[in-house]
Amino acid sequence: MTQRTLVVIGGDAAGMGAAAQARRNDPDLEIIAFERGEHTSYIACGMPYMIAGLVASPDDLVVVPPHVFRERYDIQVHTRHEVVEIAPVEQRVRVERLDDGHTFWQSCDELLIATGAVPIVPDLEGVDAEGNFCLKSLASGVAVATYIESTQPRRAVIVGGGYIGLEMAEALRLRGIETTLIDLARQVMLTLDEEMATLVADALAAMDVQLYLNEGLVGFETQGGRVQAVVTDQRTLPADLVILGIGIRPNSDLARDAGIALGVRDAIRVNPQMQTETPHVWAAGDCTESIHRVSGEPVFVALGTVANKTGRIAGLNLTGVPTAFPGVLGTAITKVGETEIARTGLNTQECEELGQAYVVTQITATTPAGFYPGASEIHVRLLAEPGTGRLLGGQIVGGPGSGKRIDTIAASLTAGLTAQDLVDMDLSYAPPFSPVWDPVQTAARVLLREI
Amino acid sequence: MTQRTLVVIGGDAAGMGAAAQARRNDPDLEIIAFERGEHTSYIACGMPYMIAGLVASPDDLVVVPPHVFRERYDIQVHTRHEVVEIAPVEQRVRVERLDDGHTFWQSCDELLIATGAVPIVPDLEGVDAEGNFCLKSLASGVAVATYIESTQPRRAVIVGGGYIGLEMAEALRLRGIETTLIDLARQVMLTLDEEMATLVADALAAMDVQLYLNEGLVGFETQGGRVQAVVTDQRTLPADLVILGIGIRPNSDLARDAGIALGVRDAIRVNPQMQTETPHVWAAGDCTESIHRVSGEPVFVALGTVANKTGRIAGLNLTGVPTAFPGVLGTAITKVGETEIARTGLNTQECEELGQAYVVTQITATTPAGFYPGASEIHVRLLAEPGTGRLLGGQIVGGPGSGKRIDTIAASLTAGLTAQDLVDMDLSYAPPFSPVWDPVQTAARVLLREI
Repeated sequence: MTQRTLVVIGGDAAGMGAAAQARRNDPDLEIIAFERGEHTSYIACGMPYMIAGLVASPDDLVVVPPHVFRERYDIQVHTRHEVVEIAPVEQRVRVERLDDGHTFWQSCDELLIATGAVPIVPDLEGVDAEGNFCLKSLASGVAVATYIESTQPRRAVIVGGGYIGLEMAEALRLRGIETTLIDLARQVMLTLDEEMATLVADALAAMDVQLYLNEGLVGFETQGGRVQAVVTDQRTLPADLVILGIGIRPNSDLARDAGIALGVRDAIRVNPQMQTETPHVWAAGDCTESIHRVSGEPVFVALGTVANKTGRIAGLNLTGVPTAFPGVLGTAITKVGETEIARTGLNTQECEELGQAYVVTQITATTPAGFYPGASEIHVRLLAEPGTGRLLGGQIVGGPGSGKRIDTIAASLTAGLTAQDLVDMDLSYAPPFSPVWDPVQTAARVLLREI
Repeated sequence: MTQRTLVVIGGDAAGMGAAAQARRNDPDLEIIAFERGEHTSYIACGMPYMIAGLVASPDDLVVVPPHVFRERYDIQVHTRHEVVEIAPVEQRVRVERLDDGHTFWQSCDELLIATGAVPIVPDLEGVDAEGNFCLKSLASGVAVATYIESTQPRRAVIVGGGYIGLEMAEALRLRGIETTLIDLARQVMLTLDEEMATLVADALAAMDVQLYLNEGLVGFETQGGRVQAVVTDQRTLPADLVILGIGIRPNSDLARDAGIALGVRDAIRVNPQMQTETPHVWAAGDCTESIHRVSGEPVFVALGTVANKTGRIAGLNLTGVPTAFPGVLGTAITKVGETEIARTGLNTQECEELGQAYVVTQITATTPAGFYPGASEIHVRLLAEPGTGRLLGGQIVGGPGSGKRIDTIAASLTAGLTAQDLVDMDLSYAPPFSPVWDPVQTAARVLLREI
């Protein structure tokens, strides 16, 4: 029997997770991974903290470098190699060696696409000016850090109030840079309901971030190829540094060009085993769609947690260990200064778009217990289905210790529990941590009256 | 129709929670509560923090004082009134007014026993000496704080390494008092497995608490009615202050004397509606037994969370709103210095006593992510049933942010989830909070190999 070959496109969490899992299960499989960048398996979510100066070196964000994959896992990792074409019928891919432009065909028995997501870049004059950045790779994060070190920018503008925008706002304020954040929407963090997003805006204000909502990016003023200002539909904001965090899209062009079926928001459609609709072609991570565990509908959720899980599951199935990915809840967490922000499941807008009836409540409690030193406010918002009481989603904004409580709600959503189940749940309590009714239970108690 | 009367024995969380809930549902019910102490609805778990000097006043630990119950809830609260006899057939109780010793009979249509738990006090000469304390009420907590203020003790001995012992050790060290803790067992915290209790011992050592295990209390040396030393079976420990935290037992003598059925460890037996086996007699809180949600067996778990829940449920059922208490997991949390300690479900010893087969694993990870400033170790121990993978219990010891993760495990136990379910769960991640696989999931992944 000849040796089977697995080719992996993309050297980050999903791709290398799958490769490592496949190697554990099948020592005889030939595994070849192509990565167009210089790094493998890096912690993309760590970039704002590196830029903030909280992480000493970009190397600290690399979980496993290429040589370790080669030496310890016998995985042939080729960095600065870009797959430019997939030929699924012929079972081969065309690869460009970026350093010299040489291209070659690599055949494979199985192919895993783990090309991730890419930032949406506005098609505006000056977008490529010096001082304008997207965070799309570890190299781009290093570029921002280097630019700050070398040019000492005084004023920054961030376009987009999603996770990257918020985390970069915190990072730049920690660097002492005057920071303005603009967003086209009437709130930051569209994954939160507006009542919670308002609390996030307060946290930005507490860090002296100037926030302009309902304000669209129109263009850039540049001089000598360097950005001077961001122009919005309301004003001109002088800027030495601009971070574009408008959004991301699945990096699925290569798959589409090969006739591989796409789904919601052009993410690659996969079954729970991470197989695409094209034989011998698999996909995992930020380029794929997922099933939402509450709604049952396909969604595009590009998060490191999901990339790690789906990579592992692809690796298991690729080597004959049948494993199904049950889907996502869109659970996420971040912070702005001392304010922790988390969400899971469906928010009100998502319920409305799905035609899912809901009741919703929002409570304010403290964490730790109110009498304990350092107690700060925690706001918990919960959604449930009228009649049944089945929990649909939750959001938390609050002081230290607040955010990770979202996992209690996520576990409850996973199991299809009701608000009553959450009230009855034996959660932990001691004054340094919590009031005697955990704030998520207090929210559930109030919600019970609505059901 | 004549007015119905509810008599409540005990003015703390369970009793007053039931009374307040009953009032909300039934404005016409006469509600009379007898409390032998001076305070109602106080946060017993807050006492160590008051003694540590972290809480300004004992009043901060009183959630609702008697006059508020009277004025806002129309509940006739009588403090310093002790119920000394229950006559269930006659549906009345005999009450002693402690200030003058006067006794009287109070009739009732329904009776709720919420007498709580009491410390186990060793029957040793000198146990009543000045300087020896049990924490049994808010007044006793105030007495410890006052004693420390007035006598400035230099050396303290704590007998018993349970929650009270640990929290008092932290409190006394924060007061600058040399502190020794002795325990008859070979580990502190018998609710934890020994491998985790060892980590707690490390945390005590880091706070300069001298720990002697396998060491039994033999007696006290006193002078002029004041404690001078604690005598163990190994040594004599000079002490100006002694805290006895040997354990607690349900305060069920009154119920037993009235022929009300007791259960495990002499806790009052109740059904899920909090009814005793005697008609018109109910019980809630620390004096009752509970059903363990993992084993299905009756257990005695005296915790404020359970008292609040069962009080509320008794109040609902007493006023015609049928509600069942699904039981407990024994979830608990505490801290010693920077080290957080939490547990839920069954530990290995409990599994063995139940004849419950188990597999167990223990992992070490970090929280937040390893590269993030301030990351510290978190140890997670998980137990599951072989074959099915159903989770049985979990324990956590680690740095700031560790402990409340126990709630994710508690929610999983509530729903009967498996280790695989926990691995697949969409938990929150960002570098300031967690590695990309939350440590509880890392433990579940390792455990999967054992199942």
